[in-house]
Amino acid sequence: MSVTAARGFTASGLHAGLRRKAKDLAVVCSELPATGAGMFTANRMAAPPVIVSRQHLGAAEPQAVVINSGSANAATGRQGELDARVTAGATAKLLGVAAEQVLVLSTGLIGVRLAIDKLLAGLAPAVAALSRDGGRDAAEAILTTDSGPKEAMVARDGFTVGAMAKGAGMIHPALATMLAVITTDYPLAAGEAIDCLRPAVDASFNRISVDGDCSTNDAVVLLANGASGVRRDTERDASFVAALREVCADLARRIVADGEGATVVLEVSVTGAASDTEGAAIARRVATSQLVKTAAFGRDANWGRVLAAAGSAVWNGGFARLDPERLTLAFNGTRIYADGAALSATPDLTGPCCRIDLDLGLGNGAAAYLASDLTFDYVRINAEYRT
Amino acid sequence: MSVTAARGFTASGLHAGLRRKAKDLAVVCSELPATGAGMFTANRMAAPPVIVSRQHLGAAEPQAVVINSGSANAATGRQGELDARVTAGATAKLLGVAAEQVLVLSTGLIGVRLAIDKLLAGLAPAVAALSRDGGRDAAEAILTTDSGPKEAMVARDGFTVGAMAKGAGMIHPALATMLAVITTDYPLAAGEAIDCLRPAVDASFNRISVDGDCSTNDAVVLLANGASGVRRDTERDASFVAALREVCADLARRIVADGEGATVVLEVSVTGAASDTEGAAIARRVATSQLVKTAAFGRDANWGRVLAAAGSAVWNGGFARLDPERLTLAFNGTRIYADGAALSATPDLTGPCCRIDLDLGLGNGAAAYLASDLTFDYVRINAEYRT
Repeated sequence: MSVTAARGFTASGLHAGLRRKAKDLAVVCSELPATGAGMFTANRMAAPPVIVSRQHLGAAEPQAVVINSGSANAATGRQGELDARVTAGATAKLLGVAAEQVLVLSTGLIGVRLAIDKLLAGLAPAVAALSRDGGRDAAEAILTTDSGPKEAMVARDGFTVGAMAKGAGMIHPALATMLAVITTDYPLAAGEAIDCLRPAVDASFNRISVDGDCSTNDAVVLLANGASGVRRDTERDASFVAALREVCADLARRIVADGEGATVVLEVSVTGAASDTEGAAIARRVATSQLVKTAAFGRDANWGRVLAAAGSAVWNGGFARLDPERLTLAFNGTRIYADGAALSATPDLTGPCCRIDLDLGLGNGAAAYLASDLTFDYVRINAEYRT
Repeated sequence: MSVTAARGFTASGLHAGLRRKAKDLAVVCSELPATGAGMFTANRMAAPPVIVSRQHLGAAEPQAVVINSGSANAATGRQGELDARVTAGATAKLLGVAAEQVLVLSTGLIGVRLAIDKLLAGLAPAVAALSRDGGRDAAEAILTTDSGPKEAMVARDGFTVGAMAKGAGMIHPALATMLAVITTDYPLAAGEAIDCLRPAVDASFNRISVDGDCSTNDAVVLLANGASGVRRDTERDASFVAALREVCADLARRIVADGEGATVVLEVSVTGAASDTEGAAIARRVATSQLVKTAAFGRDANWGRVLAAAGSAVWNGGFARLDPERLTLAFNGTRIYADGAALSATPDLTGPCCRIDLDLGLGNGAAAYLASDLTFDYVRINAEYRT
């Protein structure tokens, strides 16, 4: 159980014919109207389903999410928006709710119109199949190039947070990428859900990079239906926020580990920055540097590349502050640079993780970032001719 | 003749023992004190020679540039700064000028101390070898992983602009990268040189990307000694500015074409942007997108990736403006996206250039960017184990 782990949620996933063979249509349903929140791509090419779902979240209490793979319904213009609205409307009718209570997410090829007839034909059996056991089917139906379903859950203090996600990079001719649906039976008032979701996403999905590219369809939605019936207090609220963060962090790490062609997970941790935002800029620059990522693939503790990347992190219209004399750098726990000079040390990079700890020695700012390495397989996957 | 093409300049290049076999020490000399200008990396890890040269340019009229390959003298702390000053001082003594009249540039491995004894021992023969015919030797002595020397010149209207450059990416364990020395016999008053150099560099070296990484040693210096004796007027001033831009553009293109593992030059041109700076942000984002660069390697006119990259170009704290319904996109002159939808067209990408024309249809802003593609060889070159 994953996205249906929390009380009062059902799901289903089936093959509607949008992809050749694999499951391609998922529905997640809450028995009660839920408090909803969503975070969506800021890409100016944001896909129609993103635009429609953002609008629906602002208008009503969501009760279902319908997700298709096969087509991202992106760069599809007015037809694409119409298709997204028709999908929401048809799902709502089957569930006996308002169209605005249905969120629509799509992932798959950019620029290809949704096979809307097949999708609509698949909705009735998908709704009929909704069950407490349908979480895995749903998690499978939203995948594209992922190597397998990505699910997470935390149950404690009388409530549950469950989730599913997909994402492995944008691929040929451009897959539109990361989606996550998080469900919980914790009771949240309107407006609270987004306040819980934003920091959890900022610390997880917004701190990962497979290839530095920002997709047209990225979306994380949270549905909180209160079905656990737990009584809220400060302690339990904190426990919920922590659980939500754990679930997001778990899924984010799975996405990086499953990154296209990835052989290692780069964990970049910056401490001692002049501020958190400068630390984040530096961590991001290091984690997205092609040279750092190819070095990680080569299992090379290439501190020169890390420092060169860190020194060119864009922040506030300039470069983030950094003093070569004060920073220390370690790979997998072995210090390799301090006091303005390299140390004679040989970090062990043979494992599946490459942890880079950069302490700037300037202040209390900190940030972490996860990334996959840049490999021959990444190039192969993304350079193959259009079929 | 290149960096010695303009009157009153001599140069030399020889093997001083900083590299195993290749030439590794170059001197460029102006017979007269010159008006100088320089643009240097903004990297917070800026190397000691960058710091020293920037200081010298502000203090005196430069008469020589001494450049070594083999070591970037970067991330070398106080010792590195001392080594850079000693190099300038020794060169100045040999030439009979002040230390501040000598600029020092280094390229090669990061974190390795200069072999200062070898360098100093090589200076006397290098100065003795200065000649009008030494430009090619100098251009060879500044190379690292470049496939060959990069020179450019323009002679017209009674004056000459000559130049040499090096750069092909940052490589193992981190080469510190792009250098260019431009000489001219055009007369420029103090303060004018930088006003001419900045826009020329902004339109050339600041609009190229091999791997999106910003090095610790990037430097472009201009020495103008007035030896042509031409009389200045508005027309000739414009001619000089144009010549300087041409020389910079020529060298910048050579650097991209010689990019590590490159098989194609990506020419990204953005027009119709809401402003020039937004156009530049979009052109840069497209030109540095891993997905666009791997698609270029695969000779794939992957418009979805171009639009997804364009839509996520960071500008002014948000994303640059773009309207999917108004933009048009062409690959090598063949339109492939317009009016919010893909067109059924097959651009020819078999040649050595991949030109991407993105017209946003919003305003008069425009910008262009050159980039190399992302290939297996790029990964191979940059992932090889440390030797």
